[in-house]
Amino acid sequence: MNPDTQPNTGVVFRSNVLVRFADCDYARMVFYPRYLVMFNNLVEDWFANGLNLSFAELHVERGWGVPTVHLEVDFHAPSFLGDVLQAELSVTHIGRSSFGLGITLRGADGDKRVGGKLVLVLMELGQNRAHTLPDDLRVRMTSFLSHNQKSIVEQT
Amino acid sequence: MNPDTQPNTGVVFRSNVLVRFADCDYARMVFYPRYLVMFNNLVEDWFANGLNLSFAELHVERGWGVPTVHLEVDFHAPSFLGDVLQAELSVTHIGRSSFGLGITLRGADGDKRVGGKLVLVLMELGQNRAHTLPDDLRVRMTSFLSHNQKSIVEQT
Amino acid sequence: MNPDTQPNTGVVFRSNVLVRFADCDYARMVFYPRYLVMFNNLVEDWFANGLNLSFAELHVERGWGVPTVHLEVDFHAPSFLGDVLQAELSVTHIGRSSFGLGITLRGADGDKRVGGKLVLVLMELGQNRAHTLPDDLRVRMTSFLSHNQKSIVEQT
Amino acid sequence: MNPDTQPNTGVVFRSNVLVRFADCDYARMVFYPRYLVMFNNLVEDWFANGLNLSFAELHVERGWGVPTVHLEVDFHAPSFLGDVLQAELSVTHIGRSSFGLGITLRGADGDKRVGGKLVLVLMELGQNRAHTLPDDLRVRMTSFLSHNQKSIVEQT
Repeated sequence: MNPDTQPNTGVVFRSNVLVRFADCDYARMVFYPRYLVMFNNLVEDWFANGLNLSFAELHVERGWGVPTVHLEVDFHAPSFLGDVLQAELSVTHIGRSSFGLGITLRGADGDKRVGGKLVLVLMELGQNRAHTLPDDLRVRMTSFLSHNQKSIVEQT
Repeated sequence: MNPDTQPNTGVVFRSNVLVRFADCDYARMVFYPRYLVMFNNLVEDWFANGLNLSFAELHVERGWGVPTVHLEVDFHAPSFLGDVLQAELSVTHIGRSSFGLGITLRGADGDKRVGGKLVLVLMELGQNRAHTLPDDLRVRMTSFLSHNQKSIVEQT
Repeated sequence: MNPDTQPNTGVVFRSNVLVRFADCDYARMVFYPRYLVMFNNLVEDWFANGLNLSFAELHVERGWGVPTVHLEVDFHAPSFLGDVLQAELSVTHIGRSSFGLGITLRGADGDKRVGGKLVLVLMELGQNRAHTLPDDLRVRMTSFLSHNQKSIVEQT
Repeated sequence: MNPDTQPNTGVVFRSNVLVRFADCDYARMVFYPRYLVMFNNLVEDWFANGLNLSFAELHVERGWGVPTVHLEVDFHAPSFLGDVLQAELSVTHIGRSSFGLGITLRGADGDKRVGGKLVLVLMELGQNRAHTLPDDLRVRMTSFLSHNQKSIVEQT
């Protein structure tokens, strides 16, 4: 959960994720839908600790949601019970209502386990209607934008 | 769970998926990692009913697994409590150890809700080593291969 | 999902539950919180097919919920990938707003795997307030009441 | 995760549990099977940080498991997105192979949300055979034994 600046890029949001018993399947590795729950938890932590807008405030007080509309994931290597994964999240694009995220999970030695690209959209809860990202949220997201992709602004 | 032949394509494996209370989140829509569990259940049903190799036989008796190594998903529209989704699965490629699947979930009116592409690999359980698809399994998979992609055979 | 009359008891609601890959843990048995999801799914099916009030109608149209307020479970024997469990649900008491359920999951040979007692309460969604069971629902529940407990009516 | 001594009782193992988006259901409260996952995670943390035997060491290196065989839970009040629950775990009995746990989840104000009693058994993985608690583990468990129940030692 420590924001961290890297050379030539924006801030990367970092967190550690323990591989729990509840994450492992018959093959004694992480069940892949559980990685998506880890992604969702990471986005939740980034909103609370990186963007200063907790999911409780986002959903309950403001009446918004941030559903995922697109997902690409590569599972490079399995993860096992007790592994502490190093999670990294950065922003790849910011549109009118949508934003792209890059998420990487690494093992203790820095070896890549899972790499994902997600597109999320700010929506009005229960309305199936996109909501323009408010300026303060957009500004805070921008600081996590990868340097070489900083110019990407797409319409959604 | 009824295999069904379509013009100009291979057999499509079909199943219905009820959106349950356990699938829905705060936004009162399906929580997106739950769609991946639906995908996994569909693959499980396809193995049992389409390929005649149940996951119990695959994992317990043969000592294999079929982890997902790549995933691309578009979430076109939300699904709600009580929806009965029409699931379709077809094969997009067959490699030495890997195979590609196309999965679509539709609403009752045929409207596209979720479209996914997956790559899975036949592995030896607990060994992190790919296993060549046995001939009988390969033959059965071939009948589900989409017509216009029938020539694709890739090495993995 | 076939209601079935037994001698000296009320109707028992029955269903079959496949033990899926998604249910199994590192120990290659059903992860015990997954049994509670099976219980929840069974209650959902009982409402839809036994009580003629689907969870979609209950939650979305009527604005009610049926949270579980008490739970007792004995895990007699493990269940494994591919097992088809025989689930039975009967009603043990009907109160003003609450009702008690007895649930048993058995293996293919009838051997007891899991036995549970639950108390659920009809609530108004988002209000934390109990709602009196409507007469038509109470009447339908009564037909699933175990014979020897038919006189139990408690206040909640 | 800080062990803490209370007057007239043994050490209580404590942890905080964030109610996440992934825990909440259509009713916008914690879905009750998710509480059982929280229980399982708490037991996992207690083993690692209270008993100095991580689940990875327990399962992978020693080849043991600790399935839950009995469960009683009261759900006193709902929990909501963003709540930080105060979790407490203490030992209620220690048998030959089994041990009893008392778990309480409280809201920020100390109000009781969930109270549970569990019985777990040390098993040999894949053997369905109980394993006698080794002396070092038994000694460490004893320090978490509730004072007024310290004399309870039952056979299993």
